[in-house]
Amino acid sequence: MPDAALLARLAAAVDANFEKEVGFLADLVRFPSTRGNEAPLQDWMARQLAARGYGVDRYTLAEVPLAAHPKASPMVDVSAATSVQVVATHRAANPTGRSLILQGHIDVVPAGPEEMWTYPPYSATIRDGWMYGRGAHDMKSGVAAMVFAMDALKAAGLEPAADVHVQTVTEEESTGNGALSTLVRGYRAEAALIPEPTGGTITRAHTGTLWFRIKVRGVPVHVAVAQSGSNAIMSAYHLIQALQAHTATLNEAAKHHEWYAGIEAPLKFNPGIIRGGDWASSTPAWCEVDCRIGLLPGADVAEIQRGVERCVDQAAKSDNFLANNPPLVEWHGFLADGYVLEPGTEAEAVLAAAHAQVFGEQMPARITTAVNDTRFYGLYFGIPGLCYGPKGEGAHAFDERTSLDHLKQTTLAIAAFIADWCGARPVS
Amino acid sequence: MPDAALLARLAAAVDANFEKEVGFLADLVRFPSTRGNEAPLQDWMARQLAARGYGVDRYTLAEVPLAAHPKASPMVDVSAATSVQVVATHRAANPTGRSLILQGHIDVVPAGPEEMWTYPPYSATIRDGWMYGRGAHDMKSGVAAMVFAMDALKAAGLEPAADVHVQTVTEEESTGNGALSTLVRGYRAEAALIPEPTGGTITRAHTGTLWFRIKVRGVPVHVAVAQSGSNAIMSAYHLIQALQAHTATLNEAAKHHEWYAGIEAPLKFNPGIIRGGDWASSTPAWCEVDCRIGLLPGADVAEIQRGVERCVDQAAKSDNFLANNPPLVEWHGFLADGYVLEPGTEAEAVLAAAHAQVFGEQMPARITTAVNDTRFYGLYFGIPGLCYGPKGEGAHAFDERTSLDHLKQTTLAIAAFIADWCGARPVS
Repeated sequence: MPDAALLARLAAAVDANFEKEVGFLADLVRFPSTRGNEAPLQDWMARQLAARGYGVDRYTLAEVPLAAHPKASPMVDVSAATSVQVVATHRAANPTGRSLILQGHIDVVPAGPEEMWTYPPYSATIRDGWMYGRGAHDMKSGVAAMVFAMDALKAAGLEPAADVHVQTVTEEESTGNGALSTLVRGYRAEAALIPEPTGGTITRAHTGTLWFRIKVRGVPVHVAVAQSGSNAIMSAYHLIQALQAHTATLNEAAKHHEWYAGIEAPLKFNPGIIRGGDWASSTPAWCEVDCRIGLLPGADVAEIQRGVERCVDQAAKSDNFLANNPPLVEWHGFLADGYVLEPGTEAEAVLAAAHAQVFGEQMPARITTAVNDTRFYGLYFGIPGLCYGPKGEGAHAFDERTSLDHLKQTTLAIAAFIADWCGARPVS
Repeated sequence: MPDAALLARLAAAVDANFEKEVGFLADLVRFPSTRGNEAPLQDWMARQLAARGYGVDRYTLAEVPLAAHPKASPMVDVSAATSVQVVATHRAANPTGRSLILQGHIDVVPAGPEEMWTYPPYSATIRDGWMYGRGAHDMKSGVAAMVFAMDALKAAGLEPAADVHVQTVTEEESTGNGALSTLVRGYRAEAALIPEPTGGTITRAHTGTLWFRIKVRGVPVHVAVAQSGSNAIMSAYHLIQALQAHTATLNEAAKHHEWYAGIEAPLKFNPGIIRGGDWASSTPAWCEVDCRIGLLPGADVAEIQRGVERCVDQAAKSDNFLANNPPLVEWHGFLADGYVLEPGTEAEAVLAAAHAQVFGEQMPARITTAVNDTRFYGLYFGIPGLCYGPKGEGAHAFDERTSLDHLKQTTLAIAAFIADWCGARPVS
């Protein structure tokens, strides 16, 4: 834990920089960095970090042998060559402390119909201490916090006494391949902090996520079938209902899970996108549904995949249209494990102390039913993955927003954590 | 009924021209004249008909005061200014016979996934006496038949002794505004023949059609709602199911209809296009479904519209998502009445005689559960609307095709009908 004098210096630096930090976050939010459109923001980010004196490695997913890693996820409808990653490194001379990765994702999910937003989704409007916008909360606020936590040390005349990689990645919302690519490229540290907007809680466990596309396509057999309402759109619905029932079964089993027993129906199934048919007066011959299903930490991805495929196969047998036109299941994104940050790591203890110092209370733990990138560090590379960050609302929803007061405190907590974990010494 | 000698002259002319007719039909099929994309074909058609000596009136729907007519249908997502119509007129000197409108639509419905076709949909491939392609059957075959029926008279040294309007229109598959526009523009005759591919039957009755778009949009109230599977996509399905039940009720009532009592479930409801959601891992906040529902001849369009709206309103009340986010029903196409060609018209009698002469059998009548453009003539302008044409398969489906043998016979039957209805005299 940094001493009170050091904390005061950091707090003064965060305060002094905070107007700039809010402006930085607004700049981030104004980039419509949806999947496939992150490159301009990453280019900007690389320049921002280079200007701060970091050694910047900007590369694309096409430059990394991702496919060779068993935990890479398929990328469909998106180009690896424009999926830009940024790793900005502070290399300590004669490092004496513990090294650290700070990582945030800058991809955001689509805004949806713009008229459903009170303020335009990429306007970064501020009202009553909240900044509104797609990504303001998930997780550009966290990216601002980690960048300005490092800035605070510098403004206080300090630098980490160990190597720190400040990384901004893509694909967090769809595959996790951005985070994985930094590890495949070779970046390592003794701990990784991902400041997802957890509202000042430490993420004890997250579920895994699988993405799949159901493709229904075929020729209606005869008019009688069309009359009964069996066509590609209705048959897709039949499959969705079967998957809802399948998910309910999985949630029954979840009642005995070490970490998820207390969570009501932790495994979510979501039919998120649908498209089908060409003409109001033609029987639709095709329909596609993009789906998401969760899995528990410890569950085997391949086994859950087979369960989904079996469910779809069996449901197809009981549908007029599908029995003659078997549907396909395409795995087109996330094949993500769940992860538990086992209690007791030194990294968590240092973070908890910093949190307590800034917020004046113990750091609560949360169990989440969404996925995040810490799994790559914790499960496959033996690096404790801490998921902890600012407070906001409306991830993936309308009127997404982040609390600016909380952002300032979180920035300080992360700065204190860096100072303690890495050690802080006067800028040489 | 034309005498045997005249029929033989016409038959010889149809025969001699038939290779050219098949080539003409292939040219028609090769134009991908889906909605909004008909103009190049209509430009070509205008040139083809002008070259034959007709007086050609080519105009667009933007040039006609359509909106003033109570039977115009709304056009959404399509431009009136590129919806080109063609009326080619043979003006008889000192007309002595009965005037005639020959009308065909050249718009086609989308081909759907191309890989589901045995031959490419716009290739006009010929195999074993059938020509394959989108529109080959519905209804470019009929357009070829009417054009070459007129050509046959000319090739036989004859011309109709009355005015004949040869019309190619758009919007038949979506609103009927193309056909209506010819009447609003002022074209009239004592009978109208629309050579839809009826397989040599006369259409005694057709149902009406309504198009509507259901728009579901809203904010899921809380996570518990998302968990129960209530989102915009699932709520759209809820409405579809309600409309299926509503249609079943309408079909119960149809059991007592004068013309449709013998038809099993004559009123079809079709959810033809669906689209919704933006992201697999976000609860979908919007979904739209383009639908089609039938109505019986004699039914009131406005009353059927209100029935659909009431059904959607009531179903919305029993759905978590929709109760908080009332769906909209947008009438975005067909507001089409059904129509009965009452038996006993002179026009039908003349056509039946021509058919019998060519096919050696009585002309059968059919009752259809789809709509066609004859309603405009019969219901609103007191002009008998004859729907009669060639034989084929696969309207709105894959591997749509027309029988070339039947096309030749139909061309002759129409030529004989023209000669008898209008009178035929030597070309002056």
